[in-house]
Amino acid sequence: MKTIQTQSVLAIAIAITAITTSLRAADPLPSWNETDAKRAIIKFVENVTTEGSPEFVPPAQRIATFDNDGTLWSEQPMYFQLLFALDRVKTLAPEHPEWKGKEPFASLLKGDVKGALAGGQKAIAEIVMATHAGMTTEEFESIVLDWLDTAKHPVTGKRYTEMIYQPMLEVLAYLRVNGFKTFIVSGGGIEFMRPWTERVYGIPPEQVVGSSIKTKYDLRDGKPVLIRLPELDFIDDKDGKPLGINSHIGRRPIMAFGNSDGDFQMLEWTTAGKDARFGLIVHHTDAAREWAYDRDSHIGQLDKALDAAPAKGWTVVDMKKDWKVIFAVQ
Amino acid sequence: MKTIQTQSVLAIAIAITAITTSLRAADPLPSWNETDAKRAIIKFVENVTTEGSPEFVPPAQRIATFDNDGTLWSEQPMYFQLLFALDRVKTLAPEHPEWKGKEPFASLLKGDVKGALAGGQKAIAEIVMATHAGMTTEEFESIVLDWLDTAKHPVTGKRYTEMIYQPMLEVLAYLRVNGFKTFIVSGGGIEFMRPWTERVYGIPPEQVVGSSIKTKYDLRDGKPVLIRLPELDFIDDKDGKPLGINSHIGRRPIMAFGNSDGDFQMLEWTTAGKDARFGLIVHHTDAAREWAYDRDSHIGQLDKALDAAPAKGWTVVDMKKDWKVIFAVQ
Repeated sequence: MKTIQTQSVLAIAIAITAITTSLRAADPLPSWNETDAKRAIIKFVENVTTEGSPEFVPPAQRIATFDNDGTLWSEQPMYFQLLFALDRVKTLAPEHPEWKGKEPFASLLKGDVKGALAGGQKAIAEIVMATHAGMTTEEFESIVLDWLDTAKHPVTGKRYTEMIYQPMLEVLAYLRVNGFKTFIVSGGGIEFMRPWTERVYGIPPEQVVGSSIKTKYDLRDGKPVLIRLPELDFIDDKDGKPLGINSHIGRRPIMAFGNSDGDFQMLEWTTAGKDARFGLIVHHTDAAREWAYDRDSHIGQLDKALDAAPAKGWTVVDMKKDWKVIFAVQ
Repeated sequence: MKTIQTQSVLAIAIAITAITTSLRAADPLPSWNETDAKRAIIKFVENVTTEGSPEFVPPAQRIATFDNDGTLWSEQPMYFQLLFALDRVKTLAPEHPEWKGKEPFASLLKGDVKGALAGGQKAIAEIVMATHAGMTTEEFESIVLDWLDTAKHPVTGKRYTEMIYQPMLEVLAYLRVNGFKTFIVSGGGIEFMRPWTERVYGIPPEQVVGSSIKTKYDLRDGKPVLIRLPELDFIDDKDGKPLGINSHIGRRPIMAFGNSDGDFQMLEWTTAGKDARFGLIVHHTDAAREWAYDRDSHIGQLDKALDAAPAKGWTVVDMKKDWKVIFAVQ
């Protein structure tokens, strides 16, 4: 099994060391400016972890869920998993001569991504199934790690795992030091994330919830394998997020972090729980350091959840004003 | 929310205290006789936890999975969840006058369990859906806990949560003290187990994998709820166990514990992994203290897995010879 490129791992290790050091010091969130968002996070964590506080929550119930795309790492100009799928189509093309005459593959192979995606959800589903199914789970894991080792983001030139948000890494570490279990609950593919979330975010595979395709137990030369089938199993987005939380975690989180309308129901479900609850939306407002988008974006649209935030008591992070740095690797 | 009957909780608390004490002492498995089974467990755990040992496994990868029915608690004269469903039919009968003329309910209400179950899988599915669906997840949790509070086993007269196996509680505690994460992977309903596994086994809801029905996110008087639908989602048995493990845990266990052919694939998948692996089968051989059954049993049939055990290197526990006591509460 390949590991994520050494340089990237080292940089992340340094970032994590810096976080651990800062947690011992006075400021658990050094990459956050001294604004309401930071104060809200710290106040909540102190309330629920202080024994004798009326809002005290026992450690076993300290569950925090994080969306991934746009909440823990970037999602522009399109979801990184989609960029992975497009790269895979190019890699696999020699084995599929028929793709030259078949959409959405034909357009893709001519470099016309927009044309390929004009087929909408159906085109995307075809691309995903052609690139995500037909192999064992272990083979897919290697493919994902190989890609992360070599691929670079088309705009920043960074490795994808370098485009994780330093301020959010600090929140993850801060929560864990305070007895929380941190989970990813993402619309992205569960098996696309699991190979690297432990090293990159400190979140082990068993704490990753995501969309999935079906698998089949089979024997190959007498050895058991799990084969990935080209059949959708579960979409962990919108209404699906509370269902995924219920299926995988089995209790309601007390904190939820998202950035788009896809996270609305996760935030709603979390903060409708009894006693102390916390919801947070990362609002992408920084066109200079990252991207600025919300109500009209095709990727990570944030409209309904932004409107609902004040009445629901959700904290809205203004990336431009609230974050000193964006990425874990500059 | 109701809690499990106080007396039972106290008894279990005493049992757990006894275990914790024994873990500090020389013998981590005091309810096990000094036979091969006990030696095999201890040898494996020492090998994988000793730094520098060629079989050393880092803590993050110390995943152990346990079947529930027949492995952690009894399953005779039928699965306890089925006994729960039968009790529920009686409780719900006044709301369903039509059941008097409809099988399998009509037979059940006349006390003819055998007749009701003569309809096979279809009859069981109808009973399960009628008793497990149509309410919110929180309502179902209360129903399960209320039942455990009051119901008694038809043969032993014990509460169901008193019919958990003391020797297996010791294994669970021993593994956790040695850095393992312990999971349940059961054919039983995931939401039937989760309300009580943390208190009874020390296994939190997010570490319980089981069969499930679909749920739906909905708003009731503006408050979000998850409604349990009468539609099967996933059967966590046989081939389904490695799939459930992959979906919920995302990595291969290094230890697996089962008792029937329903656990065959979980044991096979676990022990086919690279490096050190451990598989164990609880063989029900004690007609005096519990039940004796294997190849011909309708519940917990153990045939194929028993034949495969020697070649696969799986440890077979002979309950009569290997266990000093059976139940956590005598």
